Amino acid sequence: MPAPTMDAVVALCKRRGLIFPASEIYGGIANTYDYGHYGVLLKNNVTALWWRSMIQERDDVVALDSAIIQHPRTWEASGHLAGFTDPLVDCRTCKLRFRADHLAELQCGRKPSKHPGETEECDLTESRAFNLMFETSIGPVKDEASTVYLRPETAQGIFLDFKTTLQYARRRPPFGIAQVGKSFRNEITPGNFIFRTLEFEQMEMEFFVPPAEADEWYEHWMRERFDWYVRLGIDAGHLRLRAHEADELSHYSSATSDVEYLYPIGWSELEGIANRGDYDLTQHAKFSGEKLDWVDPQTGDRYIPYVIEPAAGVGRSMLAFLCDAYDEDEIGGERRTVLRLHPALAPVKVAVLPLLRKAGHPEKARAVYEELRRHMKAEYDDGGAIGRRYRRQDEIGTPFAVTIDHQTIEDDTVTLRDRDTLEQERVPVEGLAQRLLGRLAAD
Amino acid sequence: MPAPTMDAVVALCKRRGLIFPASEIYGGIANTYDYGHYGVLLKNNVTALWWRSMIQERDDVVALDSAIIQHPRTWEASGHLAGFTDPLVDCRTCKLRFRADHLAELQCGRKPSKHPGETEECDLTESRAFNLMFETSIGPVKDEASTVYLRPETAQGIFLDFKTTLQYARRRPPFGIAQVGKSFRNEITPGNFIFRTLEFEQMEMEFFVPPAEADEWYEHWMRERFDWYVRLGIDAGHLRLRAHEADELSHYSSATSDVEYLYPIGWSELEGIANRGDYDLTQHAKFSGEKLDWVDPQTGDRYIPYVIEPAAGVGRSMLAFLCDAYDEDEIGGERRTVLRLHPALAPVKVAVLPLLRKAGHPEKARAVYEELRRHMKAEYDDGGAIGRRYRRQDEIGTPFAVTIDHQTIEDDTVTLRDRDTLEQERVPVEGLAQRLLGRLAAD
Repeated sequence: MPAPTMDAVVALCKRRGLIFPASEIYGGIANTYDYGHYGVLLKNNVTALWWRSMIQERDDVVALDSAIIQHPRTWEASGHLAGFTDPLVDCRTCKLRFRADHLAELQCGRKPSKHPGETEECDLTESRAFNLMFETSIGPVKDEASTVYLRPETAQGIFLDFKTTLQYARRRPPFGIAQVGKSFRNEITPGNFIFRTLEFEQMEMEFFVPPAEADEWYEHWMRERFDWYVRLGIDAGHLRLRAHEADELSHYSSATSDVEYLYPIGWSELEGIANRGDYDLTQHAKFSGEKLDWVDPQTGDRYIPYVIEPAAGVGRSMLAFLCDAYDEDEIGGERRTVLRLHPALAPVKVAVLPLLRKAGHPEKARAVYEELRRHMKAEYDDGGAIGRRYRRQDEIGTPFAVTIDHQTIEDDTVTLRDRDTLEQERVPVEGLAQRLLGRLAAD
Repeated sequence: MPAPTMDAVVALCKRRGLIFPASEIYGGIANTYDYGHYGVLLKNNVTALWWRSMIQERDDVVALDSAIIQHPRTWEASGHLAGFTDPLVDCRTCKLRFRADHLAELQCGRKPSKHPGETEECDLTESRAFNLMFETSIGPVKDEASTVYLRPETAQGIFLDFKTTLQYARRRPPFGIAQVGKSFRNEITPGNFIFRTLEFEQMEMEFFVPPAEADEWYEHWMRERFDWYVRLGIDAGHLRLRAHEADELSHYSSATSDVEYLYPIGWSELEGIANRGDYDLTQHAKFSGEKLDWVDPQTGDRYIPYVIEPAAGVGRSMLAFLCDAYDEDEIGGERRTVLRLHPALAPVKVAVLPLLRKAGHPEKARAVYEELRRHMKAEYDDGGAIGRRYRRQDEIGTPFAVTIDHQTIEDDTVTLRDRDTLEQERVPVEGLAQRLLGRLAAD
């Protein structure tokens, strides 16, 4: 089906409360969004499935949750304090600030109405470096010694804990440390909905390998991460791998490829897979005085592992899943919006709907619902015509609907409706939860 | 069993990498901890079970994930900007700062060795109010207009989104909005491990009710939340409800009770249940100019709902679960540390252990393990004597161990060992996952 517009996706998210601007009653706050009910359910599924792929389905990755505020030396060592900057210019006319590398899109902010007849052009200062890290301070006194930063990436927490993890985790390279958590970047560029936000959740994994195996693992993680999106329902034709050119590479990286998705705004980064080499561990060893190398107990070989990093954004993943699932079609002459989400991602797995609000239907439907919700997120809905209730579930991507009707009262069977095929199957109430669980599995 | 010491619990957490000080390679950072592999698994289980109890097992609560950095007017309206302070005093002798309300514990920081013979007593200034919110700024220029705060509680995000939630969620009072997320408090008091930390994860739910029903719902949520801990394995004798005295109440609360747990540091707050009245919605209505009242479409009644808030900390819950599960006993003359965690909380559900590293045991064990990990977090371990491997699993609270031996090769059965009873049952490999899932269920 043709790709939806960003407006259509944003409107659905707002209408059904998946995602909407934060602090709206106070006029909002730049590039910041809140996630409502179905948005949280979808987000929790995305992160749970990522964890599943990293630490349940394989043996060589362990989990970590490091603090957002780390020791400030972290960012000296990582290079973020000196180098994590955007070049900014000021306009002397309109007093706005712009990114010096985005001047093609520049529009002077002076209101033409106030200065009729004048040409509105910016009068720009020289560009200055502006650090993207949010700064705050610990303790009651603000001074240089207490200045700390909100992490701009979760990765550094993993490097700080590399040695501790080696001590308890009974792992040796090649092995990885995975983390899900919030990062913060003081961005001034437009956000494109949840594509770029001030605070954002990352799913990062640092995979520590013998240097000689770095290329091979880099290939491995590119394939793995590309396939993860395909397994969860994204059309492979809407995904591509793009290797960074030399001049795009970050200071720490010898090779990076992006998994790009064909968003409504065009091909853009969904996830980056980078070969960070031994840059980070070497820097932290230097700044902390700790030995961060690995000594092979069998061979006595000593080396600083290379790091392969697949770094995904939860928001960008959600946006890709939502765009790819978004569809509009017609049923019996009526237009329908439907999210064709993979069942494992769907916020609600099954809706239970009494056909009538009498004749024992609601009581029976409640009983079926209460049994199903022990096993999965279910929703009970008795409001409005049955067609309208189906539409409501289609719009949030619920893969199954169970309808209780007069025949249910007679023979304890229900109709099971499939969101995508629209087929309605008659199945027994007995064993319903197991039947659905079988069709919901992620693998 | 007798309560463990805090030292014993901290030592176990460090030894097995559940929880350890953050930024350790740089000397650490005050009252901040990182969660390692088993700590993350436990933490994810705690929050997933809280979500389950709030939004899967009931119909009247919806989920939210609001931003950490909200519009700064939020904190003017909530009263945090003016009133969320600790009284602090300075010592002119040692230059340290102390809480004016904790002076009984005060020890002057001047090193006696440097001033032999002198009495070390603090020479204190008058007390001043110190705001506990972390401050930062958005955008490239630091000025008053761009000052924002890291939220000190997740609750306010819920109040900001009350109106939006009413619009999409098809709910009416009584109903609740639940949220899990990080909050930040610039505390200078000692932390007692993860009991009080600079950044901490909260599980908060605001339940909006008709004012006349507030007392009844306050009672309801006290019972519910107390019972939640008991259902998840905490000894009811180690829990109590304690109503706040009038002089302990927060400015917004007309009644608050704490669920207290008997931590190694004594009875302390595990969770607070507060009747916040209409304070917050009234304040945000006043500051935003938005109408935040509810109009009953049937009766036309208009009112600002009262709010009952059960507010739990993820860290404090984990600490209570760990302390209550911690046990030491003796098996065959050998001391054992065991975490008697509820199976639903246990980081790893089952360990798969080949008895020998030969005779087909490892291959069969891998096959059993790979089937089990499709359904639950499993661990494969072939390192060391079988008794030692059991001990390792006991220490992290794994409820079941499956051992593959020579008989397995003959008849496809395994021994299933129970962490608590130490019973070893002979069961078929066929149907093993279903058998375990039945014994792991949270209900």
